[in-house]
Amino acid sequence: MDKLHTLYYFLDLAGTFAFAISGATAARQRGLDLFGICAIAFTVACGGGIIRDICIGAIPPAGLTTWYYLATAIIATGMTIGLYSVVQRLNRPVLLFDAVGLSLFAVTGAQKALSYGHNGEVAVLLGIVTAVGGGVLRDILLNRVPVILEREIYASAALTGALIVVLGSYFKWLSSDWIAVIALTICFTLRILALRYHWNLPAFSKDKINRDNKK
Amino acid sequence: MDKLHTLYYFLDLAGTFAFAISGATAARQRGLDLFGICAIAFTVACGGGIIRDICIGAIPPAGLTTWYYLATAIIATGMTIGLYSVVQRLNRPVLLFDAVGLSLFAVTGAQKALSYGHNGEVAVLLGIVTAVGGGVLRDILLNRVPVILEREIYASAALTGALIVVLGSYFKWLSSDWIAVIALTICFTLRILALRYHWNLPAFSKDKINRDNKK
Amino acid sequence: MDKLHTLYYFLDLAGTFAFAISGATAARQRGLDLFGICAIAFTVACGGGIIRDICIGAIPPAGLTTWYYLATAIIATGMTIGLYSVVQRLNRPVLLFDAVGLSLFAVTGAQKALSYGHNGEVAVLLGIVTAVGGGVLRDILLNRVPVILEREIYASAALTGALIVVLGSYFKWLSSDWIAVIALTICFTLRILALRYHWNLPAFSKDKINRDNKK
Repeated sequence: MDKLHTLYYFLDLAGTFAFAISGATAARQRGLDLFGICAIAFTVACGGGIIRDICIGAIPPAGLTTWYYLATAIIATGMTIGLYSVVQRLNRPVLLFDAVGLSLFAVTGAQKALSYGHNGEVAVLLGIVTAVGGGVLRDILLNRVPVILEREIYASAALTGALIVVLGSYFKWLSSDWIAVIALTICFTLRILALRYHWNLPAFSKDKINRDNKK
Repeated sequence: MDKLHTLYYFLDLAGTFAFAISGATAARQRGLDLFGICAIAFTVACGGGIIRDICIGAIPPAGLTTWYYLATAIIATGMTIGLYSVVQRLNRPVLLFDAVGLSLFAVTGAQKALSYGHNGEVAVLLGIVTAVGGGVLRDILLNRVPVILEREIYASAALTGALIVVLGSYFKWLSSDWIAVIALTICFTLRILALRYHWNLPAFSKDKINRDNKK
Repeated sequence: MDKLHTLYYFLDLAGTFAFAISGATAARQRGLDLFGICAIAFTVACGGGIIRDICIGAIPPAGLTTWYYLATAIIATGMTIGLYSVVQRLNRPVLLFDAVGLSLFAVTGAQKALSYGHNGEVAVLLGIVTAVGGGVLRDILLNRVPVILEREIYASAALTGALIVVLGSYFKWLSSDWIAVIALTICFTLRILALRYHWNLPAFSKDKINRDNKK
């Protein structure tokens, strides 16, 4: 299973990079300065994991101690500033890497919460937080309603991945490595299909509410 | 005092439910999707307590480990979506339950901080945070200035309740159960009277500032 | 070095006061009520330190246990309401004290993280968070993009100060007291020069992006 861990490491970097690029791009579009762009890139990449670590008592949070997360955020900032036309052309691979990051963070977030001895509810909730927390912080800092709360299947894919990890660890269907691979695959597939076919969760627009009120 | 604890349990559920309904309603009005509505409902119900638990070192936070808080948020979401006209007619009882939640969370929040051995200042501040933190997080996520910072007596009622708990525990006037009942009653009464008579703390509008400037 | 610690204590109070005044002024201009103004003043003064303490495991956070921080926030609120014309005339000294607070919080934040046994990356990141976290929380609560992410050299000055503390503690050039004094002086000078000469980090406006797109 050593190869699996090397693969994880690569996927982790790819996901972190995609998250950082999405943060840096949004920050640049808002006209933030160099420091602001780098701060948002780092927040998207590490924010979710930092909240998870604070909640499970993993002090200091891994996002603050691991140098290559910070390095990834700085490289993403540099690319977004120096090679903006390249970054824009990378739109499709970035969406793909973003789905990789989403799946991996949901699965490893849930695993880490379980490994600290917490119960299944904590693991599912913090799996979701690890995956989407950074994006939510980005939108709070950029002063807009978090897109994951109104967009196509995103947090729900993270929920599915984290739930599979927790159920698998309770019922011990398979080794934890295999359960992680299955959870990753299902979460990733769900997200990619949602992107491809524009699947959305139902929303309830103001218009509908107004109609309800008029009844 | 067993009956008192059964009563607490009921009040806690009623308050949590009212908080979750207020979150779900606000999220629905903003056009969030199913996941977004549920996330905001859960945040309003548990957000304040989670911040308190992180600050006093109660890891993992009770809001993440207690299944019936999550269940309450899911039920509130279901009702807000499926029975929206009923929820709108529930406006008055919800305001009542909200005052119950405010009082109970302020009092139990301050008690929990004291029981972890922290000082009176921590207990008062975290009593307020427990009571109003969820509502503040809701407004941050929905991208508006937190209403509790500009509205009628709300956080001030929580402050009063938490302060009574702390003073009572220092001077040992009565048993802690009786002090909690008194703090609860005063906080709840203050909030209901403020709602009934539209009591407000003084604010200092832009107009007034402009007039000050012209002097 | 006893005199140095007395000086620190005075600088800490002056910086806290400046931060609280900036929070109270911004809150008053937004038309918040008495409680809201005080809450924002306290958040700006203590918010960064509270986040740092949560991340390094210093529970409960010093900002919640130290009575004179709360007292400073209350006094700043009182002055902003009762003596608003005085506060407006204090604009220049407040900017000066704000630079004092920025430098001191960056340096002491980094020192505290090191003293809890964390690595240099944690210390630099949390030095910055201590210095600018309160201001970021203020802007989130007042529903605007944090100014420090788009303004003249501010967070970068904090970064410089924290970095000097960390490098100094690794290479042991001098006693930690002397390193702190040097870091403080450089951070403060950088901030004052940036204010005086309107130094900015490069930003990348929407116009520029549009031009890039048209290429």
